[in-house]
Amino acid sequence: MGVIRLGRVELRVMDLERSVDYYTRIIGLEETGRSEGRVYLKAWDEYDHHSIILQQADSAGMDHFGFKVERLEDLDELEKKAEYFGVFTNRISYGTRLGEGQAVRLELPTGHFVELYHEIEHLGTPMGTLNPHPFPEPETLRGIAPHRLDHVLLTGDDVETVTRFFIEALDFRQSEKIMTVDGEMMIGSFLFKTNTAHDVAFIKGPDAKLHHAAFFVDNWYDVLKAADILTRNEVPIEVTPTRHGISRGETVYFFDPSGNRNEAFANGYMTYADFPTITWTEDKIGQGIFYHRRALIESFQKALT
Amino acid sequence: MGVIRLGRVELRVMDLERSVDYYTRIIGLEETGRSEGRVYLKAWDEYDHHSIILQQADSAGMDHFGFKVERLEDLDELEKKAEYFGVFTNRISYGTRLGEGQAVRLELPTGHFVELYHEIEHLGTPMGTLNPHPFPEPETLRGIAPHRLDHVLLTGDDVETVTRFFIEALDFRQSEKIMTVDGEMMIGSFLFKTNTAHDVAFIKGPDAKLHHAAFFVDNWYDVLKAADILTRNEVPIEVTPTRHGISRGETVYFFDPSGNRNEAFANGYMTYADFPTITWTEDKIGQGIFYHRRALIESFQKALT
Amino acid sequence: MGVIRLGRVELRVMDLERSVDYYTRIIGLEETGRSEGRVYLKAWDEYDHHSIILQQADSAGMDHFGFKVERLEDLDELEKKAEYFGVFTNRISYGTRLGEGQAVRLELPTGHFVELYHEIEHLGTPMGTLNPHPFPEPETLRGIAPHRLDHVLLTGDDVETVTRFFIEALDFRQSEKIMTVDGEMMIGSFLFKTNTAHDVAFIKGPDAKLHHAAFFVDNWYDVLKAADILTRNEVPIEVTPTRHGISRGETVYFFDPSGNRNEAFANGYMTYADFPTITWTEDKIGQGIFYHRRALIESFQKALT
Amino acid sequence: MGVIRLGRVELRVMDLERSVDYYTRIIGLEETGRSEGRVYLKAWDEYDHHSIILQQADSAGMDHFGFKVERLEDLDELEKKAEYFGVFTNRISYGTRLGEGQAVRLELPTGHFVELYHEIEHLGTPMGTLNPHPFPEPETLRGIAPHRLDHVLLTGDDVETVTRFFIEALDFRQSEKIMTVDGEMMIGSFLFKTNTAHDVAFIKGPDAKLHHAAFFVDNWYDVLKAADILTRNEVPIEVTPTRHGISRGETVYFFDPSGNRNEAFANGYMTYADFPTITWTEDKIGQGIFYHRRALIESFQKALT
Repeated sequence: MGVIRLGRVELRVMDLERSVDYYTRIIGLEETGRSEGRVYLKAWDEYDHHSIILQQADSAGMDHFGFKVERLEDLDELEKKAEYFGVFTNRISYGTRLGEGQAVRLELPTGHFVELYHEIEHLGTPMGTLNPHPFPEPETLRGIAPHRLDHVLLTGDDVETVTRFFIEALDFRQSEKIMTVDGEMMIGSFLFKTNTAHDVAFIKGPDAKLHHAAFFVDNWYDVLKAADILTRNEVPIEVTPTRHGISRGETVYFFDPSGNRNEAFANGYMTYADFPTITWTEDKIGQGIFYHRRALIESFQKALT
Repeated sequence: MGVIRLGRVELRVMDLERSVDYYTRIIGLEETGRSEGRVYLKAWDEYDHHSIILQQADSAGMDHFGFKVERLEDLDELEKKAEYFGVFTNRISYGTRLGEGQAVRLELPTGHFVELYHEIEHLGTPMGTLNPHPFPEPETLRGIAPHRLDHVLLTGDDVETVTRFFIEALDFRQSEKIMTVDGEMMIGSFLFKTNTAHDVAFIKGPDAKLHHAAFFVDNWYDVLKAADILTRNEVPIEVTPTRHGISRGETVYFFDPSGNRNEAFANGYMTYADFPTITWTEDKIGQGIFYHRRALIESFQKALT
Repeated sequence: MGVIRLGRVELRVMDLERSVDYYTRIIGLEETGRSEGRVYLKAWDEYDHHSIILQQADSAGMDHFGFKVERLEDLDELEKKAEYFGVFTNRISYGTRLGEGQAVRLELPTGHFVELYHEIEHLGTPMGTLNPHPFPEPETLRGIAPHRLDHVLLTGDDVETVTRFFIEALDFRQSEKIMTVDGEMMIGSFLFKTNTAHDVAFIKGPDAKLHHAAFFVDNWYDVLKAADILTRNEVPIEVTPTRHGISRGETVYFFDPSGNRNEAFANGYMTYADFPTITWTEDKIGQGIFYHRRALIESFQKALT
Repeated sequence: MGVIRLGRVELRVMDLERSVDYYTRIIGLEETGRSEGRVYLKAWDEYDHHSIILQQADSAGMDHFGFKVERLEDLDELEKKAEYFGVFTNRISYGTRLGEGQAVRLELPTGHFVELYHEIEHLGTPMGTLNPHPFPEPETLRGIAPHRLDHVLLTGDDVETVTRFFIEALDFRQSEKIMTVDGEMMIGSFLFKTNTAHDVAFIKGPDAKLHHAAFFVDNWYDVLKAADILTRNEVPIEVTPTRHGISRGETVYFFDPSGNRNEAFANGYMTYADFPTITWTEDKIGQGIFYHRRALIESFQKALT
């Protein structure tokens, strides 16, 4: 019941065609539709009509992100829980997003917009569901070819309240948190609803900003392949392949043509309902984020869209 | 709510000390306790007191397997649902299993015993939960060193009814099924409650038998390392490293000293509540199970405990 | 001075176009020329005009294999050493092979033909030699996409004499040998001139037969990718991914459309001039060849072309 | 004939016991002997008595490096060629290095000392040479556990002359070179005698300095494992896991307790006698050295010992 996954992210991009080229040829998503200044994309291992929507805009950033919910009636229930928490909600009409039904839109305490939706066209994968091969024809894959959208990391001023909202209204749990050294303030929060290390995360910073959207790749060699492809295509890499302390995942960070940060992310531990929240103290955050470098880098804190 | 994971498997072994040596030194589990002819073991990445119980017995096999549930009241609710389905249940007293509270025991339509439990001592991992390293000290790891127990595959006569039981009483979903070519009979069923490819699976065969218990390793290199360690220790390998069509996972199969089949399993796709069940027809089962060999092997069907 | 590498193998194939399709689309070689019923192919990481020649023939097998030598005058010197050893030689005229100069052809004590050549057209790689990327454009790679031809394994009756020929006439060394348990007879011999585990090897069997030709892939994930591609293309896999005891390499074996055995081979230890010959006794040959299975398989001994 | 490999490097370290701890526990070499303020070490996959000598000293750096030659008479021949080139040589007496015979010592045009030696005690590997396992008992491996010493990179003023010396006197070849943009001056030179991408390399800088000594690890996962181990042991990592453009290898750079730079290096292409020298122009050197970052880092140019 409730949220089943981070289903989609709508990104604002400043040159739509150049961005479509980037997200299809270099990231390797498939274009599945266009409508009203928006291009819809999905990864090869995703079944639904889209997981990324590119929106032509004057500035980069994230318009909103969306969670797919299990049942249609979850929309009503979660809407009520959100309102009870004190969050403003409204309804997005059937068909506003290509291939989708109605959605509940709400504004997080950090100023980000979230949509909850249930109905979305099911396109399936190239492998089909009858005696399928495990992968598509290699020739049909392009670029990094991630399996799926994995998570978003956002910035906001009140990390504690947004964490409480996810736990109380959307039934998420917290896998990791970053605390100031005096233990007084939560400055990072990693939240999960699936069994992954996080589906959405927040770090203290300006409200309503996107830090990065992450795509899932299978393993450490695929992180290397991603980095190799990025260099060949002259895509700016911000953080070369490394491991996260937080989540234990393997990673490379880079930027789309509008400056939205992307991540190719592999592995990461599994979480369950009884996962004990891991605590990082701010003085160790360098090692928590970049396990090998053991220090933050300036752009990683400052480049937000 | 409800089942959060396959929490433990109690295996019958014929030479307890030799089995403890195998499961600690070659598999690489940690012994966490002993009581009444049983030895309790956990993997390094598991938090609870145990995930494997070895029971001294006259014949190999699986005594029962257990699901950890999220809340204490889930025991009552799932007990009622199981009884409503027509399954016999009874209660296992507090403390019958070392470090555990009360459990609900039920007998599946395939003759296997399942226990549902909530209370279990939390031992934690060697990394701790404060600014943790992603892994334990390398020197403390032994053998294959899987992250955790992953799934069990069992045999039984009535695959359809046991599938229905998991879906209706325990809120599982079916990721894949194997059907006779005429489409009349379900002869394989893969069921998930987490986001993995399966938490428990059944194939048609004699009731109450164990096909294998699987441990999760991180990647294809760790499958190779597992196979290398097995050869060095002269452990019989039944199926050398390969890929599954079903689940897409990477695998190696081998036997414990009593003849219970083990698997080291990596990757496999993610499932969600809206995952469409994949169908295999019996004529393609060879490719489904051993993607590279594309044929079954006799022992794989016959060696059951 | 002398032999610098296994430069090429000419394979007899029974359906030339089907074989070209296999070697270009599934193995992923590039066609570089055609002449007189022959098709010339190279791997992307090779500089010379060809490393595989496919010859339309009535039966499968190996026409000959060739070593590239460092200097033109090595042809004369090695020809003399071969004749001194007692081996029959003759000259292949300039231009008999597309893009090549003259060659010295000789018949091994096992009945196989070897050609020594120096002059061959240099085609280069797609990366070029000025500020090159490490790899070609991913879109230009097809199939398994090995880096290069690696080695051949041949059968013959007199393994000892052919070993002596390689050591005495061609300045090879022996990395490993398989001896009967009584130590009386050499039944396997692995020979190197480069720093690899072997460039050519012989096992006891019928004279003048090919056991397999091996292509080099980078790592264990590429062995998996090779096996996945083979299954998708319904190419018969004889031995699914595993490790060799001999050479320590990672491997998968399969057959071309004519029944010539191919191998995708990764890693393997490095050898040097002072490498001590490793000895295997016949009773351990199963583990030596298939480290995980620890037993031979019948086809591996019998399927020769 | 001639040089068969980079056989050993003698490093100056400022705290011998701390360095021995680092090279044995974190790098994972084995201590094989001690004599006169020196500790001798070998990697598990090396046969000779030592490949690293640690020398207690007042400053960090490289005392000398050594090439093992194939035959005793190579010492005389290479000594003559070196003197003919104009390089000063002298003899190191039998037994000066533990377990070794006589050596020829010469001073390179860059001020570095090289020793040529043939006789060295053969200790063998833990696997032995009779029906060996491919690897030692896992429990006996510690830390990064590289297979062997791979190469050294040195700085010097006259890169062209030292390159000419290696080619003319020691029969090396050049795999890659870095040229100023005007093509006038060689500022980097990568030289090989084996089939690896380089056995020794020079970049323009102060004479007689060590840039780094590299150890060979098997693959990209082992580079990750190396980086994980370095962080756990709080060893300073200078360059986190990435790919080289030059050599195509996978790498991580870090420092020993005295500040000598080490590298864990995997893969890299194969070279042969006919390998065409790859040219880099200085403006592309960032991409050549750090393929993903595409820029140098200051410490990489300045931290020399």
